[in-house]
Amino acid sequence: MTYCVGLLLKAGIVLLSDTRTNAGLDNIATFRKMFTFVAPGERVIAIMTAGSLSVTQTTLARLSDAVENPESDEHSSILKAPSMLKVAEMIGATLSEVRAEISDKMDRMKQSASASLIVAGQRKGGPMRMFLVYPEGNFIEATEDTPYLQIGEHKYGKPILDRVITPETSLVDAEKAVLLSMDSTLRSNLSVGMPLDLAVIEAGGLEIAKSRRIEAEDEGFSRMSRAWSDALRDAFQRIDPA
Amino acid sequence: MTYCVGLLLKAGIVLLSDTRTNAGLDNIATFRKMFTFVAPGERVIAIMTAGSLSVTQTTLARLSDAVENPESDEHSSILKAPSMLKVAEMIGATLSEVRAEISDKMDRMKQSASASLIVAGQRKGGPMRMFLVYPEGNFIEATEDTPYLQIGEHKYGKPILDRVITPETSLVDAEKAVLLSMDSTLRSNLSVGMPLDLAVIEAGGLEIAKSRRIEAEDEGFSRMSRAWSDALRDAFQRIDPA
Repeated sequence: MTYCVGLLLKAGIVLLSDTRTNAGLDNIATFRKMFTFVAPGERVIAIMTAGSLSVTQTTLARLSDAVENPESDEHSSILKAPSMLKVAEMIGATLSEVRAEISDKMDRMKQSASASLIVAGQRKGGPMRMFLVYPEGNFIEATEDTPYLQIGEHKYGKPILDRVITPETSLVDAEKAVLLSMDSTLRSNLSVGMPLDLAVIEAGGLEIAKSRRIEAEDEGFSRMSRAWSDALRDAFQRIDPA
Repeated sequence: MTYCVGLLLKAGIVLLSDTRTNAGLDNIATFRKMFTFVAPGERVIAIMTAGSLSVTQTTLARLSDAVENPESDEHSSILKAPSMLKVAEMIGATLSEVRAEISDKMDRMKQSASASLIVAGQRKGGPMRMFLVYPEGNFIEATEDTPYLQIGEHKYGKPILDRVITPETSLVDAEKAVLLSMDSTLRSNLSVGMPLDLAVIEAGGLEIAKSRRIEAEDEGFSRMSRAWSDALRDAFQRIDPA
């Protein structure tokens, strides 16, 4: 399992992913699920992944190859595509193609492979946008009404987002919110695990303003997690019965 | 969908269920999912249901018929069974039998029917016990380590229980906890809906100490829900960033 969450706010984009990957309960490993593509001052794109590692790694490898290919053009490189919508379409097409290839192979074992992605970013002169790309390559987009997207184990961490996130939320509060959303998920689902990858893209910045790996022993995160637990218990005690 | 939660505490048992039943998104109805069987001073049993309404209604009807049958004995009536463990076994056997009968019929439509139950109670001279009965009739039991059981849409309402419930929790706090757990679930899952049924069984009381239907317009519940939202937002604002 996985938990990745992205917020699209007026002030910028805040993304958080875990790193736990498992093939069965007895085969657990750490793999990065957040990837960034930056042409400073021109374009910034972040991708977070959930699902079959063979699908997501191959998808990312093809996208990277195209970006690095000196002969790539606006139809093949996500750093040259004319809009974020076109970027999402290209990523969706690549994901769908890889998924189909790998599923063909896995059909022989009566298994299937699937993955979904969150794609967020901005190109010079365009708005910030954030998409959730489904295994078949189609996608939905975050809006003012629903300024966050989640992939993987989304339920435990959703209530806090519903309560505190609006498009006006500051980037500092947004970081707190995604970390607390992850904290609830980590407590309840063993297949979501530390370390975490946090990235912040400021509106118009066209770069990764902040990129931070949060290890299991991170003091700031541990303190925040304890403080939140204490605050919830205090609030619970103070509430009058119904 | 459904959400039912039961707490087994030193002070007693607290149970809460929603009432929404749906066959597709365009066919929503209200059905009670909490049922009690009481021989005052002798025995108290509460059952909460999740899953196919045809399975749960038929199961409850058979259990009720057996209780009302003047010829019933300790092998057929849950009010005469010699222990709560035996009660859980009888209920599990009935559920499994009904499920199998109905699934046989539904197989022709390539559909299946399934249900699970929470069974809680106490008989004179015995301890309070609480079980989660699976569709096949097997069951697990709440313990000091995990003093709560949930059926249906359990994820949204789990974090609050994990944070505040221990076997020492008071009945007043337990009522608050199950109502806040339900509140989080109601906000996130449309297929869980008001009104709610709350029941409290005090340790050794051998009766339903409190039985309350909470309607959508219930002032106490609405006030508590708002107060909890406000308290969470306040706590969120006061927490320092990680």
